[in-house]
Amino acid sequence: MIRLDASSADFAPAFSALVNARREADEDVSRDVSAILRSVREQGDAAVRDYTQRFDRHDLDAGGWRISREDCHAALDRLEPELRKALELAAERIRTYHAEQRPADRDHTDAAGIRLGARWNAVEAAGLYVPGGRAAYPSSVLMNAIPAKVAGVDRLAMVTPTPGGLINPLVLAAAAIAEVDEVWRIGGAQAIAALAYGTDTIAPVDVVVGPGNAWVAEAKRQLYGVVGIDMVAGPSEIVVVADGANDPAWIAADLLSQAEHDPTSQSILLTDDAAFGEAVAVEVDAQIARLQTGDTARAAWDANGAIILVPMLEAALPLVDRLAPEHLELATADPDALFAKVRHAGSVFLGRHTPEAVGDYIAGPNHVLPTGRRARFASGLSVLDFMKRTSFIACSPASLAVVGPAAVALAEAEGLPAHAQSIAVRL
Amino acid sequence: MIRLDASSADFAPAFSALVNARREADEDVSRDVSAILRSVREQGDAAVRDYTQRFDRHDLDAGGWRISREDCHAALDRLEPELRKALELAAERIRTYHAEQRPADRDHTDAAGIRLGARWNAVEAAGLYVPGGRAAYPSSVLMNAIPAKVAGVDRLAMVTPTPGGLINPLVLAAAAIAEVDEVWRIGGAQAIAALAYGTDTIAPVDVVVGPGNAWVAEAKRQLYGVVGIDMVAGPSEIVVVADGANDPAWIAADLLSQAEHDPTSQSILLTDDAAFGEAVAVEVDAQIARLQTGDTARAAWDANGAIILVPMLEAALPLVDRLAPEHLELATADPDALFAKVRHAGSVFLGRHTPEAVGDYIAGPNHVLPTGRRARFASGLSVLDFMKRTSFIACSPASLAVVGPAAVALAEAEGLPAHAQSIAVRL
Repeated sequence: MIRLDASSADFAPAFSALVNARREADEDVSRDVSAILRSVREQGDAAVRDYTQRFDRHDLDAGGWRISREDCHAALDRLEPELRKALELAAERIRTYHAEQRPADRDHTDAAGIRLGARWNAVEAAGLYVPGGRAAYPSSVLMNAIPAKVAGVDRLAMVTPTPGGLINPLVLAAAAIAEVDEVWRIGGAQAIAALAYGTDTIAPVDVVVGPGNAWVAEAKRQLYGVVGIDMVAGPSEIVVVADGANDPAWIAADLLSQAEHDPTSQSILLTDDAAFGEAVAVEVDAQIARLQTGDTARAAWDANGAIILVPMLEAALPLVDRLAPEHLELATADPDALFAKVRHAGSVFLGRHTPEAVGDYIAGPNHVLPTGRRARFASGLSVLDFMKRTSFIACSPASLAVVGPAAVALAEAEGLPAHAQSIAVRL
Repeated sequence: MIRLDASSADFAPAFSALVNARREADEDVSRDVSAILRSVREQGDAAVRDYTQRFDRHDLDAGGWRISREDCHAALDRLEPELRKALELAAERIRTYHAEQRPADRDHTDAAGIRLGARWNAVEAAGLYVPGGRAAYPSSVLMNAIPAKVAGVDRLAMVTPTPGGLINPLVLAAAAIAEVDEVWRIGGAQAIAALAYGTDTIAPVDVVVGPGNAWVAEAKRQLYGVVGIDMVAGPSEIVVVADGANDPAWIAADLLSQAEHDPTSQSILLTDDAAFGEAVAVEVDAQIARLQTGDTARAAWDANGAIILVPMLEAALPLVDRLAPEHLELATADPDALFAKVRHAGSVFLGRHTPEAVGDYIAGPNHVLPTGRRARFASGLSVLDFMKRTSFIACSPASLAVVGPAAVALAEAEGLPAHAQSIAVRL
């Protein structure tokens, strides 16, 4: 953890170093990934079978390619009631929030007599990657699957590796709640390739979403354009802007809720109260000691944590925009005054009673958010990621006469006579 | 040009071959491009200077890095009045159409007492690539720049190669009309790298849009995630669905307006009238002979053109969805009846008096559209490509008490105790 003071002379370069620190692994997996993609494209099922045997020690033919909907529902039925209710409440709230994202169609005839509009449609099929191992979160299944279903996707295919045959029942239960249509026991770049290209067994999809390791991320990047993808995801991060009136234990817990994800996670506190900042630092250390995920949190906090003292809270906002954080907490009595001046953040948590974790699970907005300063240009996952817009134009003879001559002039100036001709013959 | 009959026994494989034909060059430029990106990232201006000298034979230091706003306005003032008026009419109509795309913010308190919403902001800076050579179209400048300005982008930087120092005055005039803020005389992958990473001379941007050759497209793909990009673009294409009541000369002109772009362009006619199809084929040949762009159109029509006979026009619609064309003309008396059944198309041109070229220039909707079957999952360029959404959540003590326990249960089930703790301490 580093301590910075925005009033000190050497702040600017130190803050720039923090902003530009690359926490994303520079693993050069691109050659490996392109070889895997090529194999799956050319050999289909056989390649998927081989890679799954090799990387996941799972024999697809003997152990099964799919997990049935019945198995997913059985997993749901076996959940303890409290957990099932929690998942169902989360799903319901996520569904309600995302339903409002469905865009409106347009259809309007303008003063020139030209009818113009746009119509939205869902993609036909979407693929959802769910990691195996410790990042296999049922909440991620809900957050990725429900917007697809709300969009109206006909077919939602989930892929998840089952290393050594091991299946995570929580993930299956979430798939049942989210009405996932297919669950395939495959992972890695080979699973992304199977979804994008299709194989004899697995039909291709149009959009692939969901988190994954460096191979999965690189496969999505390489297949971007063959299919739509959600985004390039990096390590998680939180920025907390807090005044001295907060309970240091609350703010420390919030910083640790990011730090416990992964050693590459980042937690930053911006405060105008030096004593409060120190109290939070003490609390972080105290809570880490009691935390089951303490080793991870300790590694992340030591390597990437920061406490930054600002002369006043408003002075924190330009720093927030530089960081363009995935998660931003504004823990003050009047958070809206600060929020009005924030331009770049994935999701904002307003006030003292809105810990970021409430957004991870239950509030309703998506927890798939732009990381690594990508909130400068990217948004969280939404229904729009599973839809596309078709614009349309209708001219009458009269309205074509109004705008046609200008279009003919432009086509001729661009050296495209057939463009000009297609309008001129109708005038 | 191939002729297919949807009623014939061998139609399915022949149509599949048409759908899956790859018209995009498989040039393996990825290694060259990554070397260029690395150079620009590490050496900044010096690398940009060297590549521009080498590829464009333009000495940036001696001949100038930038084209001033004054030079752009001078180019506009020198335009012949008819052309200037045409460009200004196009700009005005594009602006009006795109203004309606600005998304609404959300801010709502739900039954549980949780305030939820989303706020849209423009990106700070956008970069616009404009090719040199024959694809340097002023209409593309308008179509790419105006949505950025409508979105509220603070700074719009255009890059365009000026091979041998040569500048296209039409492009400058369009830049003046579209209120482009900076024009840089650079091109290729090095220009995309300069925009994404920034150099001492050129400040970085957040989003890069605009068409380009294989190097430019690969550079955008590799930098996707460092910046936002519009899309991966391929050769242009049109599908025309027309009954026998159309004038064959009109439909032939429409098919040729795509074919003249590039030898990789594709024009497909779907008709229920075999005699009409043959009349169009004859007209295409006749018009090509008179066309200044006839060689290109001939190459494209011969290699990629198709006339497909369907038993009835409704039978064309599943074929349209398979092709997911960039441009779709529905040249019938009641095009809405057909349009209602189309799911995948970039832009649709309704009725006999709406040639596709009217959309290229003047109608208002964007002409930057998904190609190569990407209309299955992608949309045309819009104001949204230059904006991003920040979601927000505000809990009160009472509303956190409603949903908090469920979130705690989920966090514990996922093995994330600090997440649980950050909520539990507030309950």
